[in-house]
Amino acid sequence: MTLERKIPVAVLGATGQVGQRFLTLLADHPWFTVAAITASERSTGRRYGDTVRWSMTTPIPPSVRDLMLAPTAPDAVRGCRVAFSALDSSAAGPAEVAFAEAGFLVVSNAKNHRMDPDVPLVVPEVNPGHLALAAEQSYGTAGARGVILTNPNCSTIGLVSALAPLEAAFGLEQVHAVTLQAVSGAGIPGVPSLLAIDNIVPFIPDEEDKLEVEPHKILGTLENGAIRPHPVRTSAACNRVPVIDGHTLCLSVKLRDQPDLDAVRAAWEAFRGEPQHLGLPSAPARPIVVLDGDDAPQPRLHRDLGAGMTTSIGRLRPCPLLGIRFVVLSHNTVRGAAGGALLLGELAAAKGMVPGVAAEDVIGPRAGSAT
Amino acid sequence: MTLERKIPVAVLGATGQVGQRFLTLLADHPWFTVAAITASERSTGRRYGDTVRWSMTTPIPPSVRDLMLAPTAPDAVRGCRVAFSALDSSAAGPAEVAFAEAGFLVVSNAKNHRMDPDVPLVVPEVNPGHLALAAEQSYGTAGARGVILTNPNCSTIGLVSALAPLEAAFGLEQVHAVTLQAVSGAGIPGVPSLLAIDNIVPFIPDEEDKLEVEPHKILGTLENGAIRPHPVRTSAACNRVPVIDGHTLCLSVKLRDQPDLDAVRAAWEAFRGEPQHLGLPSAPARPIVVLDGDDAPQPRLHRDLGAGMTTSIGRLRPCPLLGIRFVVLSHNTVRGAAGGALLLGELAAAKGMVPGVAAEDVIGPRAGSAT
Amino acid sequence: MTLERKIPVAVLGATGQVGQRFLTLLADHPWFTVAAITASERSTGRRYGDTVRWSMTTPIPPSVRDLMLAPTAPDAVRGCRVAFSALDSSAAGPAEVAFAEAGFLVVSNAKNHRMDPDVPLVVPEVNPGHLALAAEQSYGTAGARGVILTNPNCSTIGLVSALAPLEAAFGLEQVHAVTLQAVSGAGIPGVPSLLAIDNIVPFIPDEEDKLEVEPHKILGTLENGAIRPHPVRTSAACNRVPVIDGHTLCLSVKLRDQPDLDAVRAAWEAFRGEPQHLGLPSAPARPIVVLDGDDAPQPRLHRDLGAGMTTSIGRLRPCPLLGIRFVVLSHNTVRGAAGGALLLGELAAAKGMVPGVAAEDVIGPRAGSAT
Amino acid sequence: MTLERKIPVAVLGATGQVGQRFLTLLADHPWFTVAAITASERSTGRRYGDTVRWSMTTPIPPSVRDLMLAPTAPDAVRGCRVAFSALDSSAAGPAEVAFAEAGFLVVSNAKNHRMDPDVPLVVPEVNPGHLALAAEQSYGTAGARGVILTNPNCSTIGLVSALAPLEAAFGLEQVHAVTLQAVSGAGIPGVPSLLAIDNIVPFIPDEEDKLEVEPHKILGTLENGAIRPHPVRTSAACNRVPVIDGHTLCLSVKLRDQPDLDAVRAAWEAFRGEPQHLGLPSAPARPIVVLDGDDAPQPRLHRDLGAGMTTSIGRLRPCPLLGIRFVVLSHNTVRGAAGGALLLGELAAAKGMVPGVAAEDVIGPRAGSAT
Repeated sequence: MTLERKIPVAVLGATGQVGQRFLTLLADHPWFTVAAITASERSTGRRYGDTVRWSMTTPIPPSVRDLMLAPTAPDAVRGCRVAFSALDSSAAGPAEVAFAEAGFLVVSNAKNHRMDPDVPLVVPEVNPGHLALAAEQSYGTAGARGVILTNPNCSTIGLVSALAPLEAAFGLEQVHAVTLQAVSGAGIPGVPSLLAIDNIVPFIPDEEDKLEVEPHKILGTLENGAIRPHPVRTSAACNRVPVIDGHTLCLSVKLRDQPDLDAVRAAWEAFRGEPQHLGLPSAPARPIVVLDGDDAPQPRLHRDLGAGMTTSIGRLRPCPLLGIRFVVLSHNTVRGAAGGALLLGELAAAKGMVPGVAAEDVIGPRAGSAT
Repeated sequence: MTLERKIPVAVLGATGQVGQRFLTLLADHPWFTVAAITASERSTGRRYGDTVRWSMTTPIPPSVRDLMLAPTAPDAVRGCRVAFSALDSSAAGPAEVAFAEAGFLVVSNAKNHRMDPDVPLVVPEVNPGHLALAAEQSYGTAGARGVILTNPNCSTIGLVSALAPLEAAFGLEQVHAVTLQAVSGAGIPGVPSLLAIDNIVPFIPDEEDKLEVEPHKILGTLENGAIRPHPVRTSAACNRVPVIDGHTLCLSVKLRDQPDLDAVRAAWEAFRGEPQHLGLPSAPARPIVVLDGDDAPQPRLHRDLGAGMTTSIGRLRPCPLLGIRFVVLSHNTVRGAAGGALLLGELAAAKGMVPGVAAEDVIGPRAGSAT
Repeated sequence: MTLERKIPVAVLGATGQVGQRFLTLLADHPWFTVAAITASERSTGRRYGDTVRWSMTTPIPPSVRDLMLAPTAPDAVRGCRVAFSALDSSAAGPAEVAFAEAGFLVVSNAKNHRMDPDVPLVVPEVNPGHLALAAEQSYGTAGARGVILTNPNCSTIGLVSALAPLEAAFGLEQVHAVTLQAVSGAGIPGVPSLLAIDNIVPFIPDEEDKLEVEPHKILGTLENGAIRPHPVRTSAACNRVPVIDGHTLCLSVKLRDQPDLDAVRAAWEAFRGEPQHLGLPSAPARPIVVLDGDDAPQPRLHRDLGAGMTTSIGRLRPCPLLGIRFVVLSHNTVRGAAGGALLLGELAAAKGMVPGVAAEDVIGPRAGSAT
Repeated sequence: MTLERKIPVAVLGATGQVGQRFLTLLADHPWFTVAAITASERSTGRRYGDTVRWSMTTPIPPSVRDLMLAPTAPDAVRGCRVAFSALDSSAAGPAEVAFAEAGFLVVSNAKNHRMDPDVPLVVPEVNPGHLALAAEQSYGTAGARGVILTNPNCSTIGLVSALAPLEAAFGLEQVHAVTLQAVSGAGIPGVPSLLAIDNIVPFIPDEEDKLEVEPHKILGTLENGAIRPHPVRTSAACNRVPVIDGHTLCLSVKLRDQPDLDAVRAAWEAFRGEPQHLGLPSAPARPIVVLDGDDAPQPRLHRDLGAGMTTSIGRLRPCPLLGIRFVVLSHNTVRGAAGGALLLGELAAAKGMVPGVAAEDVIGPRAGSAT
């Protein structure tokens, strides 16, 4: 790390669950420092510590407790070069464009721009090369280009993390996914407790669409400034379950080749991505851990592996219909939201995509040599 | 009902969760009366009310509170002609044979004899004709034949209830089932609360095997004194979830024909079985209810429909891989255990299979005319 | 029952949790029939079955499914004589006055008028005589008097039900109450599941005040057209716990006399109130049941005793500080809300307080002889 | 820290929940290293990683994964000087005596010896001076004295931590405690999930006795080689609630003086104990944190403050009966079990009570100057 001083960032939508998680993960970050936070109009001008209904399990970072909430507008957060967006989808669309037009690197967790043809939709270990798609964007002016990067849906991330090594090694044809998703994905107020205790809600609005659509783009190929979608065919059924954090996915998968189970396991265990090669600050040592034991992974026990950034896989066995089946667990508010977006921001910084900050400034010689 | 007096029955293994449910459902039953209850040796000779750790939500039926617990042996329950078995599988195998050898009609919820070639495995609405398979059994002596009938696994019952009308109308080829199963299925002590709160356990011992194997038999055809298995191919993945009662199944199904969704729904709604035609006491008016609304069925809201005997179905929609998909909910300790077995006992009685009790004695003229 | 036809009633605020419970309990009621239902403006004019997010565990009663939602105004529900109010406290104050001014018997579950000096606050078994306080009201006109009656707070009801027999027999001086309250008390959306799963919220707005204040009035004495408050001193601490239905109260009580534990138990077991004497339709056979066993009552097992109208008590033992201590359980949305209010409406009807319906019309000779 | 090498310790009963927590907390400990682990006979001789059903949320520490499980006997763990006992109370009594007789410093979480007249029962911040009571013990031989130290019950620890500053400042007379205790206190199998989901169990065997008895000793005075019990009178009611970790206590307290609420709060905030003065490795910076906000503390949000070693207090307000009331939260398996015992072991080491290790060897100059 050769930065003379840390890169000032803004967190957009800082009072919600994802915003709180961003602030928690950004506390003491080696590259970034939170210089501005924004909220909806009725909270603007108020001190963060007095406004937020804090619900993380660690205290509010002292460095943000006294920050004042700014409006969600580029003018209000001058001095920042990067905006991490935890905005709700009802507000994210035009707001993120405004920041990009003002020259910001916008890293968004919202769904609004994910499927824009010129917007990278990236899991850093899976498709870092898609960052180049951002060159097709024309936000900002010649001297001050802005960019929008997006993080996939929380359950998509666990899905494609598990699938990417299989696609690379054996070719991916069909996926049947049934999810058991944690309530934190819906934030506060989110799911009423009357529907969550002693109950399953077998429906999450729009979720199955995202799971069926986003993998086409993430696993696709960047060619001539556009993504050629991957032809995988996916069937998704999504359930809300009484779990605080951690999405569980029961997957059956049809591969082009028909590897034995040991080869599948080996593909996962060998998997490392660019975040590991670059030594990005939020990268887990291992993006995927294969757990032994009949009954793993379990959300309460395994969601925090790799500080919530590692995807856990267990119960690999043959599927009578599609070939193989297994269970995947991914922390939905860390890897699946703020943590995944932060890692994406780190990757972008390491690629020199932060305005005014060279790649060499953040990636020192040691990291370079590890590549 | 022309019985002069009710048929005396024994409940084997009366102190566990399934036994308690049998006693609750048998209280004030129009045909059967609980004349004897059995337990493992250490409880034998004790008063039921002093021994059981009662955990139903209605009080112990007064008629059984003062019964003494007998050993689980035919000699100990003389006077009964029918034995409902709630025995644990560790004890059920030889015990049920002993009762059959002594001339009892044994209706069992245990897994031990389900796959015996001469033992009917029956969901009364689905395969009542399989009762005839019992003629292949040779328990007891010429003058006093005994019989074993079995109830399928708790999650199998919901599965085949939903599938049977589709098989009849459109032909069934492939089933992909992911279950979200309630903790009551494991009884007490069962699942430790440390594994149940804020958690999913993606494994239930032996459960996936049962779900993949039992439908072959239940949906099979009785020919020449044997069941020709149905060739349906099933992939099952079973999860334990923090729900008290009610198993939820996310199903994708491939049918031989390719009906539109309205035809599928119509097949379910038109479905009635022999229990409905005969007007059996525990038969729900409708074995299947199709629920409207995006987010139904839900275990807490819908498990008690039809007093826990109705299977709820919702979210019917196309499946990109197999054709159609939908969600099924079935009450695992009522329809899936004691209630299903009781209905099976009623069906057997209505077919004249209770030693010494003619079919006409239990099924009066009104019921007959309804057939 | 000698009514020629049932008394038509309106349910105000019929779409919420308490409203749904009212409709469920009023289905097939022997005295009352739901003739009108009201809702807030945005639902007015819509069919109930299309509008409500039904969350009871039995289906919408067919008789109300097709009713149209009326505005919450007396003119809109002409033909009814009784209004059961499930209105939120934000709307109940003036609306209930309007109905009383229009000559209705209003039976309210809202808090707004509970402490009005001329409004009876009644648990039918505890202080039925307080109904006479309504004579002090001057709602309506000479020929068409209206009246407001109120049901106490959900946790107050369990509290005073347990205390009333002790007050009568031994004199009540001090009460220390810690509550563990179910999430259904807050309705939908109510408590966010992120705050309910694996958590306790040790605070419920205004609840401790209600528990400390309402017993003064309920246990007070009606003298000269006013309630002389009972001097009991109460300390209440209220917690929200991950339970669907059923409020648990841990009570320590100081009595004037110092009865032994057997005498305390006997006082509870002997307790019957006017609803039992009159044979009111919703009255449980026993208002209080004392449960044996170290670990009773438990909400999941015992909340439905007496169809949710019975108060369960257990764990009676000495308290080193106040004398005795014990645990009380009461179903908060049945006895503690709609069921309690319905019983109050029945009591009022049996006292001739329904405009145009004589007491003799509802209480037949059999009931009379039971008094 | 001037130890040339770490002090080798044994963990007795290493496979249970408390044992697992000990191993987790001892991983990378600056003073202690786990050199031996013991289990019941049927696990003896097996590798830890193959034997334990690990249920912590961090992986098994690599340093213990390959250790072999020894019998719980001093001969089997030669080389260790300290034994942390996570034994079940069914085994702890004679086993801990055997280790003490063999010259070990035994630090126990079991209840068996807590009330022995010569055994210190210690919360390090509250009554560190009671360690001197150990001089009355005569375990071992002249050259090799052993000692037993004990950690209080999990809910007692939160209780006395909150009370100690009040006793010191204002004098403590009466305490009314109602607890809402997490299921982890009962371990695995522990509480069946059928009793934990959507339920409260208002009883925990022996727990109320411990809460009423242990504070007398902990808050007592060491005089002439014996503890003169503190005369505080306590009433405790204990409930099991659906929470994974963290015991919540609703307390009402009568103090000799009648301080205003600000003075009470100030007493808590100023509170520091010998672990803080000595800078013990497991000591939280602040033993007590007073939380703002109406609805704090909450177990899910606040149990991990100070790495689970800090006691959280909120909702301080007047009590109409006893003077003041408030809510206390303490992590029951960290501060209330293994973490508390580890801190006690650290305190003992810093006092020179580890055989063969001088106080100066563990407490360096910096720590000394902080005293």
